[in-house]
Amino acid sequence: METDFVDWLLRQIPADARLEVPPGDDAAVLRPPALRRTVVTVDMLTEGVDFLLGPDCSPQAVGHKALAVSLSDLAAMAARPEAAVVAVALPRTGGEELARGIHEGLARLAAEHGVTLAGGDTNAWDGPLVVSVTALGSVAPGAAWRRDGAREGDLLVVTGACGGSILGRHLAVTPRCRAALELAAAFPVHAAIDVSDGLSLDLARMMAASHTAAVVDLAAIPIHPDAVRLTARDPAAGSPLDHALGDGEDFELLMAMPPAAAHAAVDAARATRLDVPLTIIGEVVAGSGLSARGADGERRPLVPRGFVHQF
Amino acid sequence: METDFVDWLLRQIPADARLEVPPGDDAAVLRPPALRRTVVTVDMLTEGVDFLLGPDCSPQAVGHKALAVSLSDLAAMAARPEAAVVAVALPRTGGEELARGIHEGLARLAAEHGVTLAGGDTNAWDGPLVVSVTALGSVAPGAAWRRDGAREGDLLVVTGACGGSILGRHLAVTPRCRAALELAAAFPVHAAIDVSDGLSLDLARMMAASHTAAVVDLAAIPIHPDAVRLTARDPAAGSPLDHALGDGEDFELLMAMPPAAAHAAVDAARATRLDVPLTIIGEVVAGSGLSARGADGERRPLVPRGFVHQF
Repeated sequence: METDFVDWLLRQIPADARLEVPPGDDAAVLRPPALRRTVVTVDMLTEGVDFLLGPDCSPQAVGHKALAVSLSDLAAMAARPEAAVVAVALPRTGGEELARGIHEGLARLAAEHGVTLAGGDTNAWDGPLVVSVTALGSVAPGAAWRRDGAREGDLLVVTGACGGSILGRHLAVTPRCRAALELAAAFPVHAAIDVSDGLSLDLARMMAASHTAAVVDLAAIPIHPDAVRLTARDPAAGSPLDHALGDGEDFELLMAMPPAAAHAAVDAARATRLDVPLTIIGEVVAGSGLSARGADGERRPLVPRGFVHQF
Repeated sequence: METDFVDWLLRQIPADARLEVPPGDDAAVLRPPALRRTVVTVDMLTEGVDFLLGPDCSPQAVGHKALAVSLSDLAAMAARPEAAVVAVALPRTGGEELARGIHEGLARLAAEHGVTLAGGDTNAWDGPLVVSVTALGSVAPGAAWRRDGAREGDLLVVTGACGGSILGRHLAVTPRCRAALELAAAFPVHAAIDVSDGLSLDLARMMAASHTAAVVDLAAIPIHPDAVRLTARDPAAGSPLDHALGDGEDFELLMAMPPAAAHAAVDAARATRLDVPLTIIGEVVAGSGLSARGADGERRPLVPRGFVHQF
């Protein structure tokens, strides 16, 4: 029942000096960090699209993913995670156990990233599970990474490796918050986006916003072992490179950086001063759209692919 | 399709000086008002529970309600509305028209209350419509109304009239933001809550949080004409007073105020210096729970009633 669950929930949430009025009132009151901007983003996950509850996906995994995808958006703005509020629509049967599991997954990731859970809304209905997380972060004035700042001559840098997230990483999302804050502190980053819908599609979005074009070195794309496994299972679904370019939910960061900074950042990552590897995958040029440079050095148009909601 | 809809949406949203990075990036960046706290609240509406799309409920009405209920929470904290982010899960058929209608309803109310629509997340799925709004407000440090501040001797003051919201006001919600800000500027308010689940239930919550009890003058409860109509239609469902005490979704404000301030506030409302009437409905006493004082002056226990999600 809602009342019992909310009482339990309020006992789980640790005190936090950022909360002038903690969860349990009509709204929470946050002390915003002095001289910083507030960064806000919302993501909604629905059962059947973003997760399938079952042996491979626990309620804890849903809670983890629900917060992780919003933290990934904060990372893409180079924002420090601060707080989150969570709304859920629970099925009427088994809703309370589900809600507790979701909270556990959320709370664990929140603690890892210094996020205070500032409030929420718990609903029940006859439909499937829906979880929506709004994350709040902070950033110095003018310091947020935007997707519209890429410039001709920038190099394109990506964290981690892409493709095949459906084999598990689409749930066990690692938001690149720490890497983003370390990169932002050390290097100029002209533009950034998180790879949520597909590397080529999100790159195309960054280029469109920046009024620039990208040339991608296909041989340089960091292909995740999951993409290789996916091709081995079903060769007709595409090559590992196809998966790396078009699969959604990698939640890696894609950045446009001046060449010297890009090389220095890759070196820093190699020296394990970052918690994730970096790879230069191409460059920003004048024009629009994407092209791919193959092993022969020749450029061919690259059609962006990725996940788009149909309605 | 998601891309077209988001392009359309971004063109609808007026520029706002509070946005350092406007909607369209991974997250929005807000300039928080100097020396103020950030107030945050989230509410999720689901089809079949919070609304039934049809001749009596347009997509615009859903958008209106989705923002209005979150603004009501800001009003209950005496917070000035600043920004909102919106997440929707749309059915796959007719989703785009629905989404445009929802946005129209949201945008109209947002403009009325000076709220900038800072971002969102648009999803499609095979389930019914879900809309979740996170509202951000601001308030001076220490100035937020809380539900745990009621004191012995305070009078209980309610805006507007209660009961029978199901006849239409549960959709056409008027968030009491302006009245809250005017009251906060002029009078001490020790505690406040918005009447979202039922006057008696929300009063009981305020009393429990404040470790106080309430005596309600039944004859003083402002009964909405809709409550009278509801009883006329179905006398077995309860008297107008029953509806006023137990129906959800009035979205009026219930406040505990020192007696002199309560009387002065009622006078101010009578002189139409507020946009809603105020009524004194009882007082705060020592103890716990609710009691009702009838026309005979005798006190009887009052069992709180209202809407609670079952799961």
